[in-house]
Amino acid sequence: MVAFAILIILFLGNVERFSTLSRPFTFCPSNMCKPALAIAVSFLLGAFTSALSGFLGMKIVICANASTGLKDRKGSLNAAFRSGATMGFLLAAMSLLGLYIAIKLFKCYYGNDWEGLFEVIAGYGLGASSMAFFGRAAGGIYAKAVDVYLDLVSRNSQDYEDCRSLSVIPCVGDIVGDIAGIGTDLFGSHAESCCATLVVASISSFGIDHNFTAMCYPLLISSMGILVCLISTLFTAYFSDIREVGKEGDMRPVLKKQLIISTVLMTFGIAIVSSIALPSSFKIYYFGMEKVVTKWQLSFCVVVGLLAGSIIELFPEYHTKDYIRKIQRAVTDAGVPLASVCAVLASVIIPIYADISFSVGFSIAATYGIAVAALGMLSTIATRLAIDAYDPISRYAECIAVTVPRQSFSAAVKGFTIESAALVFIALFSAFVSRAAISHIEVRTPKVLVGFIGGCMLPYCFSTMTMRSVERQGLKMAQEVRNLRSAWARYIQISTDEFFTGLILPGALVMLAPILVGTFFGAETLSGVLAGSFSSVIPIVNASSNADGPLNKANEDIRAGVLDYAKLNRRPPFPPRDAPNPAFGSRCKDTSGPPLCILIQLMAAESLVFARFFAPHRG
Amino acid sequence: MVAFAILIILFLGNVERFSTLSRPFTFCPSNMCKPALAIAVSFLLGAFTSALSGFLGMKIVICANASTGLKDRKGSLNAAFRSGATMGFLLAAMSLLGLYIAIKLFKCYYGNDWEGLFEVIAGYGLGASSMAFFGRAAGGIYAKAVDVYLDLVSRNSQDYEDCRSLSVIPCVGDIVGDIAGIGTDLFGSHAESCCATLVVASISSFGIDHNFTAMCYPLLISSMGILVCLISTLFTAYFSDIREVGKEGDMRPVLKKQLIISTVLMTFGIAIVSSIALPSSFKIYYFGMEKVVTKWQLSFCVVVGLLAGSIIELFPEYHTKDYIRKIQRAVTDAGVPLASVCAVLASVIIPIYADISFSVGFSIAATYGIAVAALGMLSTIATRLAIDAYDPISRYAECIAVTVPRQSFSAAVKGFTIESAALVFIALFSAFVSRAAISHIEVRTPKVLVGFIGGCMLPYCFSTMTMRSVERQGLKMAQEVRNLRSAWARYIQISTDEFFTGLILPGALVMLAPILVGTFFGAETLSGVLAGSFSSVIPIVNASSNADGPLNKANEDIRAGVLDYAKLNRRPPFPPRDAPNPAFGSRCKDTSGPPLCILIQLMAAESLVFARFFAPHRG
Repeated sequence: MVAFAILIILFLGNVERFSTLSRPFTFCPSNMCKPALAIAVSFLLGAFTSALSGFLGMKIVICANASTGLKDRKGSLNAAFRSGATMGFLLAAMSLLGLYIAIKLFKCYYGNDWEGLFEVIAGYGLGASSMAFFGRAAGGIYAKAVDVYLDLVSRNSQDYEDCRSLSVIPCVGDIVGDIAGIGTDLFGSHAESCCATLVVASISSFGIDHNFTAMCYPLLISSMGILVCLISTLFTAYFSDIREVGKEGDMRPVLKKQLIISTVLMTFGIAIVSSIALPSSFKIYYFGMEKVVTKWQLSFCVVVGLLAGSIIELFPEYHTKDYIRKIQRAVTDAGVPLASVCAVLASVIIPIYADISFSVGFSIAATYGIAVAALGMLSTIATRLAIDAYDPISRYAECIAVTVPRQSFSAAVKGFTIESAALVFIALFSAFVSRAAISHIEVRTPKVLVGFIGGCMLPYCFSTMTMRSVERQGLKMAQEVRNLRSAWARYIQISTDEFFTGLILPGALVMLAPILVGTFFGAETLSGVLAGSFSSVIPIVNASSNADGPLNKANEDIRAGVLDYAKLNRRPPFPPRDAPNPAFGSRCKDTSGPPLCILIQLMAAESLVFARFFAPHRG
Repeated sequence: MVAFAILIILFLGNVERFSTLSRPFTFCPSNMCKPALAIAVSFLLGAFTSALSGFLGMKIVICANASTGLKDRKGSLNAAFRSGATMGFLLAAMSLLGLYIAIKLFKCYYGNDWEGLFEVIAGYGLGASSMAFFGRAAGGIYAKAVDVYLDLVSRNSQDYEDCRSLSVIPCVGDIVGDIAGIGTDLFGSHAESCCATLVVASISSFGIDHNFTAMCYPLLISSMGILVCLISTLFTAYFSDIREVGKEGDMRPVLKKQLIISTVLMTFGIAIVSSIALPSSFKIYYFGMEKVVTKWQLSFCVVVGLLAGSIIELFPEYHTKDYIRKIQRAVTDAGVPLASVCAVLASVIIPIYADISFSVGFSIAATYGIAVAALGMLSTIATRLAIDAYDPISRYAECIAVTVPRQSFSAAVKGFTIESAALVFIALFSAFVSRAAISHIEVRTPKVLVGFIGGCMLPYCFSTMTMRSVERQGLKMAQEVRNLRSAWARYIQISTDEFFTGLILPGALVMLAPILVGTFFGAETLSGVLAGSFSSVIPIVNASSNADGPLNKANEDIRAGVLDYAKLNRRPPFPPRDAPNPAFGSRCKDTSGPPLCILIQLMAAESLVFARFFAPHRG
């Protein structure tokens, strides 16, 4: 992060030829500032806050695991639920606080130069999502390498006995991946969506009129979100039937009810914030045109985003039921798990929600509408984090004690992460295109198309590199078993070393690609690369995050023998093959999928921050 | 095909409200014609020629298999080589003849109205590639279903004994897939690239000046290609050391030499054709601008395409060596074949050649340059077809006799198919955009972006559907074994039925998607869909066609025990797992990969043909 901050200073400082003097700003020439240094500082601030939230999240979960594991069946559910909520509120509040401090801090420095101020805030978002990207990717590699390792040693049964004790390592890895990962991921998305909204808003009429309350609309929405989540959590904890759940073992309806309450309350919350914070109508500038938007229109965009996000989370069965059945049939029938994984590839439903939010947002308030739709989707982040964290907390508590009924939400489609990432990407992408002074992106010109084809390949390169890291790390650990140096500390050390070294290449690829392309080929090619990466990532992430849940579910059912083959198929059964290798689904999900969501946001944010350097160079 | 021809009449006839009167054309209002009917006729003509060439190709190969199988080791190589060449020349000549007849035929009807004439020729290309699409997809399903079937029955050893005799069915399937498939595929690409060049040329200065010789430049290049291939084939057959090859068993250097000779001769051939057929300089109209191009500049575009295609074919080892090694290591090390398949995904080299040809072509002669680069790539099609056909001929001769040393070229990257498909797509796409009167495609507008995201998912949907067909068909055949009705004719019937019914849904998806999107959402969304599909297809096809070769090679080496594990890894070995399932690679390659190449060309050609219907409707 420090190295990258130095890069920022070098590149953006170079625009002014490293002049130590203050320079006048484009928008407001009476104001003088040194922006390059400030962006580097806000970048580091964002990275630090992101890392801190990941760290604290992990601490909470480890304590939670212990306390959950030590409770009885009934108490443990409650403990897991409360720990999840603690983490959710912590991360949401930290994200908001960090951003608010950053704005206040840099406002002292920039005074009334809001163009400079929100350019710096984009740097904060970049820092947060860079750290999130590494957290997610590292966690995935860490967790899955152990799967590979266990897979390897299970072939040698004498080795296998030695190393069964190591099965706790996947717990460590999964905690890193699931908690630090999800925490920093949603933290990054949240910060990024706030930053995108702020950057886009800075060229609206309330940006130009210096209406600070209206500018802070994204922050106010997020604050209202925390309040709403607090109410719904308290309601669940004290008034719902959570105490009775222990017997039945099904937490899902409770959490679902909480989500519904949050969504309903949040709809009112959005209306309240909009009516207070926004002027009754304001102007949006886009494509050189201006558009008048009323406050109720804008709040409608936020509500559409909120609903789109909630629908996916509320009806996971609807989105995956069909796939689970298909996979079960494919496995019992033909034992061709790959074809079934491919069947999940056809999950075209999720992008439709994103399309709707995008279209509504754009037609009402152009880029700003898209940005606030993403914001709406992430406004109930505290509840979502609680739900997301509940699953791994109860799962890893199993490592400690078996009292906790495992509550798998893995069949739930984590579609809203993709959706919000897509919306944030589009908002950032638009901001980049205006900032880099590209008049329009014509896909048929070679500049754009060459970048586009390259961009299509980029996520595949990244996934390949991380997959290779997983393999290499698993192999190293298995070699250690052979060499009979199977000391505990040694394994941990290998994992840790490898996940740092294994991230150098893919990390460098993603962090440097926008800078190199923008510098050597110009902003138009870079816009092609961004669009190409986006188009590759959408199906990959959709497929990899949706394949895992149904695949695991089908797998569990098959292992448990609950499938009635004949009934399912209405034909005489074939002897079932090995259940499909669950490692495939989860390796896709944990190693490749989630970092790709951050990847596109990260690349767009980076392009935006460096746009001022690319614009005069033109490749 | 007939149903689709009726659709064409309905849609395009509707533009003139089914008036039976002739109507004046936009470009040349003094000319009257009934275009809708003519396009339907040329569509059927293209489809018929394509089907005929696939059929004749198959006939040749079946005879060739028999005669190859009955010869001794030395004679069989020669026989396979000659049969391949026969097929190559047949298809190249038929493609050229069909197109020439079509042009001459419709020229009588259209007289001097060249805009109408080449709109009709686009219909011919659409017909050819539609049939190619079905041929390729059906062949793939047919061939791979048997793999699934054998995989299933091998689990029940008592069944297995019964059905070993069926192992000849994969031969039948592979012949359909490899020969009818490759034949109609390259036939379709060739016809499509000629048509794209002709359509684009009709708006150049020699289109407007009615210079028929210059218009026929693509046909002349192809004719010269046949002549060149004839010379190089005769050279190989009579002067090279093909008679000595039998002993060594390695045909590859001989075929490589032939390709080099063809490429060198073709470079001169292009120069000769250009100097005779083209005016010394002419104008290209693009984006409302005009550009003067000299004939040598244009012939340079063709040569760049030719070289780019040859380089990929000549140095397959260079492009795959590293992958084979990686896969071998991954298999012997960690037994994680999936991660290795993913490693092949990173094959970013092939698109770079396409990028170069595209950039050179565009910067010299805009869309026309891109179209002729694709033409150059396919100019030595006869030699390529011979090489492509040689492999399956010698392979299926093994079904008859074991005298033929199997010559696997499967490690060769079939990258030039992707490349030429990409170039043809871009040319057709540009022609569509001008014809549909879209001023420019701004990726940030919702109309385009919604289509774009949908387009990204489309190839995945198609692949999924074909994969499901494969599974269903294999399962049905396996059920028959259980029911002890294992009559030969019955299996063949099941396969044949299933590959027709299995193609209905995916075929309809691809054939109807452009029409539906264009009709209901307008041409801009359709252009988004096309761009999105293109961006998905490029990495999938790259991966699936490149994964197969190295995977098979690694697999064969492992099975043959030629791998020195310790040496390869410099570490103590793990007991190797099962070799990676070769069915995965080949199922990807045969079922999903090749139809996708045609899919994008087909959708672009279809959009072009229907552009006149979409343009006034605007969704």
